Amino acid sequence: MAGSPGAGRERERAALADALAVSRSALGVSTPNPPVGAVVLDAAGAIVGRGATEAAGGRHAEVVALDEAGPRARGGTLVVTLEPCSHHGRTGPCTTRAIKDGIARVVYAVPDPTPDAAGGAETLRRAGVEAVLVDDDETAAARSGPLKAWLHRQSRGRPFVTWKYAASLDGRVAAADGSSMWITGPEARRHAHALRQEMDVVVVGSGTLRADDPALTARLDDGTPAPRQPLRAVMGLTAVPPDARVRGTDGRFRHLATRDPGAALDMLGDVQHVLIEGGPHLAGAFLAAGLVDEVDAYLAPLVLGDGLPAVAGAGVTTLLEAHRFTVLESRTLGLDVHLRMTTDRHTAASPAAQTEGPR
Amino acid sequence: MAGSPGAGRERERAALADALAVSRSALGVSTPNPPVGAVVLDAAGAIVGRGATEAAGGRHAEVVALDEAGPRARGGTLVVTLEPCSHHGRTGPCTTRAIKDGIARVVYAVPDPTPDAAGGAETLRRAGVEAVLVDDDETAAARSGPLKAWLHRQSRGRPFVTWKYAASLDGRVAAADGSSMWITGPEARRHAHALRQEMDVVVVGSGTLRADDPALTARLDDGTPAPRQPLRAVMGLTAVPPDARVRGTDGRFRHLATRDPGAALDMLGDVQHVLIEGGPHLAGAFLAAGLVDEVDAYLAPLVLGDGLPAVAGAGVTTLLEAHRFTVLESRTLGLDVHLRMTTDRHTAASPAAQTEGPR
Repeated sequence: MAGSPGAGRERERAALADALAVSRSALGVSTPNPPVGAVVLDAAGAIVGRGATEAAGGRHAEVVALDEAGPRARGGTLVVTLEPCSHHGRTGPCTTRAIKDGIARVVYAVPDPTPDAAGGAETLRRAGVEAVLVDDDETAAARSGPLKAWLHRQSRGRPFVTWKYAASLDGRVAAADGSSMWITGPEARRHAHALRQEMDVVVVGSGTLRADDPALTARLDDGTPAPRQPLRAVMGLTAVPPDARVRGTDGRFRHLATRDPGAALDMLGDVQHVLIEGGPHLAGAFLAAGLVDEVDAYLAPLVLGDGLPAVAGAGVTTLLEAHRFTVLESRTLGLDVHLRMTTDRHTAASPAAQTEGPR
Repeated sequence: MAGSPGAGRERERAALADALAVSRSALGVSTPNPPVGAVVLDAAGAIVGRGATEAAGGRHAEVVALDEAGPRARGGTLVVTLEPCSHHGRTGPCTTRAIKDGIARVVYAVPDPTPDAAGGAETLRRAGVEAVLVDDDETAAARSGPLKAWLHRQSRGRPFVTWKYAASLDGRVAAADGSSMWITGPEARRHAHALRQEMDVVVVGSGTLRADDPALTARLDDGTPAPRQPLRAVMGLTAVPPDARVRGTDGRFRHLATRDPGAALDMLGDVQHVLIEGGPHLAGAFLAAGLVDEVDAYLAPLVLGDGLPAVAGAGVTTLLEAHRFTVLESRTLGLDVHLRMTTDRHTAASPAAQTEGPR
């Protein structure tokens, strides 16, 4: 690479941040493959290719980026959020392709933990390609960001589960008469719809189905459906009416005819990220089963004093049994407050920073 | 004043910020007088006196600062958070004292709105003293900070009411078995005890009295009582047992034998700031009566799924009737989240800034 080694490293760091940003577009799309981002720098350090993992059966991020780079990849650097695979999957190993295209150096942020795919760096080295694992801000950001759910699936054998709810300050998701539109404001709703787009599956319980008849689609600001939609699932033994909106017309609907959260996740197969949206009994069942990994709470600064609680049947009798989370993020969204919390003590090792409002 | 006019103004601004900080020590102490802070600069611009309003019958802030300054006040500047009074109260007008001490210039942040005391600036000017009302950050900070409750009392004829509660994410203040110690962590509790020290009165309902037998004292980090204690009040028709901890031994206890929040405030007389601490029915009654001005919510990142709700009987049936607040401040306190909210649309004119955690 041209220029000083320091400038080269700086370009690689920037390319890794770029690859990480690009990889977000693969969220909810790449399953069962990991949502990876890749950037190709030519021998002079200029960006000549960029890519994210395509939908299952499509190209891996590295291949997308190398296809764009073409012959300019020769002697260049492949920067990628996850160690390139060396196994023969549906698309052929990425390492073979990088070697064939004459890549001189590969920089990656997270080692591949899967027995099938691992060894990519070793394969590259044997072929005379420099393969470097960076361990920096980008590593942490990839682990806690786009690769979070996939890594969780690899290590725990089940999908990452996010519980999302929007409630009043006193924990009510609907008023006494059942009215719940809208407890939170447009900014919080927009955020929640963007969250749906990153999911493989969005789940509600039969009670919510009956009460709200939700479409469960991810919608854009103008109310039209987003181009990519998660699978819509209803969990519970009650039959889903033929005219329920959740069924839609795109074939992306599943009825999970069980009351057991673990069984429901098993029925979903090799998905990475599941969003639990409501209502109280569904949330309570997942919490009681220890199957909630992250919580997205949208809190509206209002009090109802009565109405439907956000959680029921969570299996807690005394304070010591409470389901405890760690706040990762706390911010205002329009007039509301958004809290992102984790149940993972490892992820939560560093406590949340102090965040402060205007006075 | 020596030096350039710009440097003089800068020193006055700094002195005003100083006076504002000093005035906090008068919170919960000065009632019925306003909690004011004052700083005296000598003719060369050096700080030679500083003071806050003493307890009722004691000296006003200006007099404390002028006493400390002594003859060095001559030709100097008196910097004060509120327009000095010109009426003959228990301590004689502050304007007379400033004139007698040879003060050349008075700078103040908030005009005195009371008919009795107003006209202080005019009195000073007639005596040849420059009197300048600044309208700057310090004005807003004084209005929304130390002088908030007193100004509210002047304009509305009733005390400023803060409702404080500590709850789980799902709005529970105790688990199903009644356990509630501790829902929030030590940082949130410390903050809540510091809040009590700034109050004139702390109120609980008879239900909380029965359930928790609280001491209601403001305590320091080591658990010992703070030097200055608010009045402790129990509202409700039920008799307060002779051995209730809330009675204490310092004579600072009141039983407000009514169920009507407005009547309870009237019984308290000329107090400025009342803290409503619980339980659910007391909070609901004050909310339903439109008598909550600010909310301090301490939210613990945990879910109980059952137990005592934070609010009951708030008079809300449908979402449109919800009691709505505006978030002024949102921050993490230890592992918990603290939200300060207002019900005053005027104060809340500028929406809360975006606050963001570590990722």
